[in-house]
Amino acid sequence: MASLDEGWADPARLYREGRRARMLLDAAREAAAEAAGCRPDELVFTSSGTRAVHSGIAGALAGRRRVGRHLIVSAVEHSSVLHSADAQEADGGTVTRVAVDRTGVVTAQGYAAALRPDTALACLQSANHEVGTEQPVAAVAELCREAGVPLLVDAAQSLGWGPVGGDWSLLTASAHKWGGPSGVGLLAVRKGVRFAAQGPVDERESGRAAGFENLPGIVAAAASLRAVRAEAAQEAVRLRELTERIRGRVAEAVPDVEVVGDPVRRLPGIVTFSCLYVDGETLLHELDRAGFSVSSGSSCTSSTLTPSHVLRAMGVLSEGNVRVSLPLGTPAQDVDRFLEVLPGAVAAVREKLGAPAPATTAVREDVLVVDALGKRCPIPVIELAKVIGDVPVGGTVRVLSDDEAARLDIPAWCEMRGQEYAGEEPADRGTAYLVRRVS
Amino acid sequence: MASLDEGWADPARLYREGRRARMLLDAAREAAAEAAGCRPDELVFTSSGTRAVHSGIAGALAGRRRVGRHLIVSAVEHSSVLHSADAQEADGGTVTRVAVDRTGVVTAQGYAAALRPDTALACLQSANHEVGTEQPVAAVAELCREAGVPLLVDAAQSLGWGPVGGDWSLLTASAHKWGGPSGVGLLAVRKGVRFAAQGPVDERESGRAAGFENLPGIVAAAASLRAVRAEAAQEAVRLRELTERIRGRVAEAVPDVEVVGDPVRRLPGIVTFSCLYVDGETLLHELDRAGFSVSSGSSCTSSTLTPSHVLRAMGVLSEGNVRVSLPLGTPAQDVDRFLEVLPGAVAAVREKLGAPAPATTAVREDVLVVDALGKRCPIPVIELAKVIGDVPVGGTVRVLSDDEAARLDIPAWCEMRGQEYAGEEPADRGTAYLVRRVS
Repeated sequence: MASLDEGWADPARLYREGRRARMLLDAAREAAAEAAGCRPDELVFTSSGTRAVHSGIAGALAGRRRVGRHLIVSAVEHSSVLHSADAQEADGGTVTRVAVDRTGVVTAQGYAAALRPDTALACLQSANHEVGTEQPVAAVAELCREAGVPLLVDAAQSLGWGPVGGDWSLLTASAHKWGGPSGVGLLAVRKGVRFAAQGPVDERESGRAAGFENLPGIVAAAASLRAVRAEAAQEAVRLRELTERIRGRVAEAVPDVEVVGDPVRRLPGIVTFSCLYVDGETLLHELDRAGFSVSSGSSCTSSTLTPSHVLRAMGVLSEGNVRVSLPLGTPAQDVDRFLEVLPGAVAAVREKLGAPAPATTAVREDVLVVDALGKRCPIPVIELAKVIGDVPVGGTVRVLSDDEAARLDIPAWCEMRGQEYAGEEPADRGTAYLVRRVS
Repeated sequence: MASLDEGWADPARLYREGRRARMLLDAAREAAAEAAGCRPDELVFTSSGTRAVHSGIAGALAGRRRVGRHLIVSAVEHSSVLHSADAQEADGGTVTRVAVDRTGVVTAQGYAAALRPDTALACLQSANHEVGTEQPVAAVAELCREAGVPLLVDAAQSLGWGPVGGDWSLLTASAHKWGGPSGVGLLAVRKGVRFAAQGPVDERESGRAAGFENLPGIVAAAASLRAVRAEAAQEAVRLRELTERIRGRVAEAVPDVEVVGDPVRRLPGIVTFSCLYVDGETLLHELDRAGFSVSSGSSCTSSTLTPSHVLRAMGVLSEGNVRVSLPLGTPAQDVDRFLEVLPGAVAAVREKLGAPAPATTAVREDVLVVDALGKRCPIPVIELAKVIGDVPVGGTVRVLSDDEAARLDIPAWCEMRGQEYAGEEPADRGTAYLVRRVS
């Protein structure tokens, strides 16, 4: 509020309002740099976390163009990183996307194997934005340092909780992710890192973030980061207990559920799970009606009708996906009420969709074809589950589907159910997914 | 304030806060589009006016790359436009910079002459940001339309006063210029204009403005534009009278002053003048001490120590330059008090600098050399003025200077004083400027 009154002027001007604006900007930069663990002259404010990532990757790649045009990212980065990687490929560069395991974590070995003589930059998130899994940033930073390759850490998810450990070269973050205002991001570039800002020249923010500074936003961002950090240690313990409660209780109270992400090395306030035979969008609306605002990585909740790239990279179930993010200060009662409401909401959606009850016996054949063409997640998996009991052990169900989510969810269902996924084949229309009954 | 409470959520989300954020965003877009004179789906919000210009020019150039890579701008555009033009040249394109006259205005003929078969885009500001001169946008838009070339209008200075007339193709603006918040710009691209957004893909704002939307800023920007427009007609008349008062009174009360910009076709609230033998920075500090926050295009007030490119393109005096911008609601008394303070402030600076009193007679020579090397604006002109009376009519003063501002200010002084500027020559150090005494 104070900065709306005092921070409207142009910090590049000589008159007193301009000087006052410059002082506010300098103070905000110092506070943010301290929180990020860098020098004030290494940090600029951008207009969003996405802009910080776009500018940071483009500038670091351009600065090391002589070395080469190879970029390393993890498969589960934020879309701003992955879209920057796509742009690098479109522009003639090459990209290695380091795989993750089922918990969503990369290994330092994965990055070590990806490093090449022409690697210009490596990127790794501090923690995942959809499943909360923390990445081994310090280990990856160390091996990048040994190879002489700068590491950009997208710290959007974690900067509110504490500085990023390890010897990173560039760091990005987003104020609204730590509860600050929208319209403010951070880009830190350590001294000595080769960096060539791209786009038309602009003198503001050391030439790294064009446009008149959003000073009220910047001041509020720095103040909120300080406030959040003051409570971070205590609040992290409390929220971790609450998300632990969700992780445990969901697995008990909701049948056919998969809680995803690393159970230990994870952010305090995020928990994600997927419910078999559930349509994510319908479940979100059920929960919204009960007063809970959650997100989802299910294909039906995305504008492109493809499941979240994070869940895909992890190889876990994407249907009926629910992501619960607890803001700072979330009361325990709210979590308890959510856990009371959830099982009924899931059951209601399953009933609506005709999800399978215990299998009914029918004529058994060795190969049974389920035609789920034109049907969207979670219907193909529901149809599969309904008939798996109709083939003898050793028999096969062939699911015809043209829904992209099936490619992820049918293998995930097999893993959850102990059946054997036998691969896919092109079909006349769509794809045939083959499942062999094991038990 | 309301949007800080209600507009924090992600408008891309399905839960109620997200839907509410989406409604606020849609309403702001409709209001801004109405004010800009376009359809809501033609307008996106960017993080600043500079970003709108950078993205608008880059997207329009890329969209017409098959036609060619020639760009037309005026010589007095905002730096964001000129820097985009520099980037286009650096990237292998070509740029024509259309000249202005001494009032700062371009002619439609100037644009007509610049159009080529490979022209991809033309840019013209609606009005100049430093001297207030309005440009013939409608006439330029018409001839661009006939040539099939899109015209981008930078309406940052004028959108608060009313929509831009004429058949423009792209339009940019900046909320803080109409008294709205910082952190918000507008980019409108008419349907049918070929446009290819540059940079990594991002799904927000039709793919034309990457990053999480600054929703509170956007809502406040739209609300303030509506509020400003409601008073615009009445306030324009009042501010125009006040700036007219400044224009007239400055010319009367301050000796050796040049009021610049078009006296009639101009913005209501901006007035700019230059004072001979005055150091802009010192004058700004004098006025600041008296409670007036003004800007300057003098070289001594810029970080690059070069005079404003606008004053340079106009060929007017740049030393002792003062730009007065009257915000909406400026009381007439404030203007009157400024006009009381100004003459004394100018006189004090001149006295400090030892500016010339009526010339004293001395030994007259045909050629007199003034060594002003190492001295900054306005010293070279002061030294010139001191000795011009020491040469006979027909004689020459040779001013040695290595200050970039001298190149502009010595010819401007000659024009103001009715002396003849005889050109420049390279000297051992710096440049020699030749002035022939006429009267």
